[in-house]
Amino acid sequence: MRNIKITIEYHGRHFAGWQLQPGERTVQGEIEKALKKIFKTEIRIVGSGRTDTGVHAIGQVANFKTISKMETEEIVRALNGNLPDDIVILQAVNVPLKFHAQFSAKRKTYRYTVLYRRARTVLQKDYCHHIPHKLNLPLIRQEAKGLLGKKDFHSFMATDTKYDENGKKDTVRTVYKFSILKKGDFLIFEITANGFLYKMVRNMVGTLLDIGSNAGTQSRIKDILRQKSRLAAGVTAPAKGLVLVEVIY
Amino acid sequence: MRNIKITIEYHGRHFAGWQLQPGERTVQGEIEKALKKIFKTEIRIVGSGRTDTGVHAIGQVANFKTISKMETEEIVRALNGNLPDDIVILQAVNVPLKFHAQFSAKRKTYRYTVLYRRARTVLQKDYCHHIPHKLNLPLIRQEAKGLLGKKDFHSFMATDTKYDENGKKDTVRTVYKFSILKKGDFLIFEITANGFLYKMVRNMVGTLLDIGSNAGTQSRIKDILRQKSRLAAGVTAPAKGLVLVEVIY
Repeated sequence: MRNIKITIEYHGRHFAGWQLQPGERTVQGEIEKALKKIFKTEIRIVGSGRTDTGVHAIGQVANFKTISKMETEEIVRALNGNLPDDIVILQAVNVPLKFHAQFSAKRKTYRYTVLYRRARTVLQKDYCHHIPHKLNLPLIRQEAKGLLGKKDFHSFMATDTKYDENGKKDTVRTVYKFSILKKGDFLIFEITANGFLYKMVRNMVGTLLDIGSNAGTQSRIKDILRQKSRLAAGVTAPAKGLVLVEVIY
Repeated sequence: MRNIKITIEYHGRHFAGWQLQPGERTVQGEIEKALKKIFKTEIRIVGSGRTDTGVHAIGQVANFKTISKMETEEIVRALNGNLPDDIVILQAVNVPLKFHAQFSAKRKTYRYTVLYRRARTVLQKDYCHHIPHKLNLPLIRQEAKGLLGKKDFHSFMATDTKYDENGKKDTVRTVYKFSILKKGDFLIFEITANGFLYKMVRNMVGTLLDIGSNAGTQSRIKDILRQKSRLAAGVTAPAKGLVLVEVIY
């Protein structure tokens, strides 16, 4: 028996998210379908975590077990030959049998992109959230610092949470990095943590954009965290601006 | 009478290029249609130059004359409200009556993006040319230097040239910048010149990729330029990797 770790890029728009769901087109479902064609048997894959409809990935990770002796390079080729054009396998490597894409994950990095100018975009329209009005960027940067470190992120977890992305019960996470770069007309939020609650990135970014717009909640990040209530935070930023960049093990 | 300069972003895939053609969907045609709706009269726009089907722009420039007193900000809003979602007007400014988007242009910058890795891409598939095999990058960089400066670029002009993009008769151009950056899995070619012959960028990039692949022509850039024949150069790189970035006046 072998354990294979695969790295996956996908465009989230036409998927009902990552997770297998009967009757829905999902990333996990499409990959398992391709694996079945190649290995002629049902193979279950374990992803590092779920992503929602519209959320993209350039570094999602999953693993699966097989008794096949096929070379990893051949697995990549065979999978890509059997996958639709909105999923691609970037890499496959052999890993120890105990490797588990979800439980072994140490850190994840997400990127959220905001188009910050009057005019909409044509070339990046699937990949960013458009803010056509003025933002208080120094305030956003200042408030983002309050999201760094080991904290209870309960206020930034979706109220419709049916699961915890990392299978943990508590809402404490450690955010190692929260950077905000301005690149041309784009604001790039990059967030690294030891794990994320359901919709946590989109809720953090949406709340910061609310604060920077002087709209919605006027609470500051510190107060929001202290209240431990989703109602304290701002809106959820749209899925299409979000990309899962990397999972570190 | 006023003269208005507009800056335009568009996605080239679903256009028969920039230039107005009867019975074809073109960028110029769509903008003129929108102008007619707004100003209730036929308005002809002049672009900085043509682009082919599949070629994108984030900084194409055009100008048009009107007797309307509408504010430039309102013109942008009105145009964007009447344009399809693969064209957007980024800016409109008043310019002197003698400004001509084509003849007044001093420099143009194009960017060509190559995906340089085994696996295809999902998120960038409309915006790059995929090279899955090994390239000799130091050789490509060395040869690219031969394209800098004031030279006769006849060998890099399409043989099916029906027009000269800049309305000039000769094939001498000055290339001010030819940079090749590796950013993650992408190679970004950025080329600035006082003008470009028809398909010149795609022919230069395609030829360099041929040289770096040890495929097709084994001629070096110097020889190719000296021969003044399209047959001396390599293949034309695909349109979708090309973006018109900026026109400087």
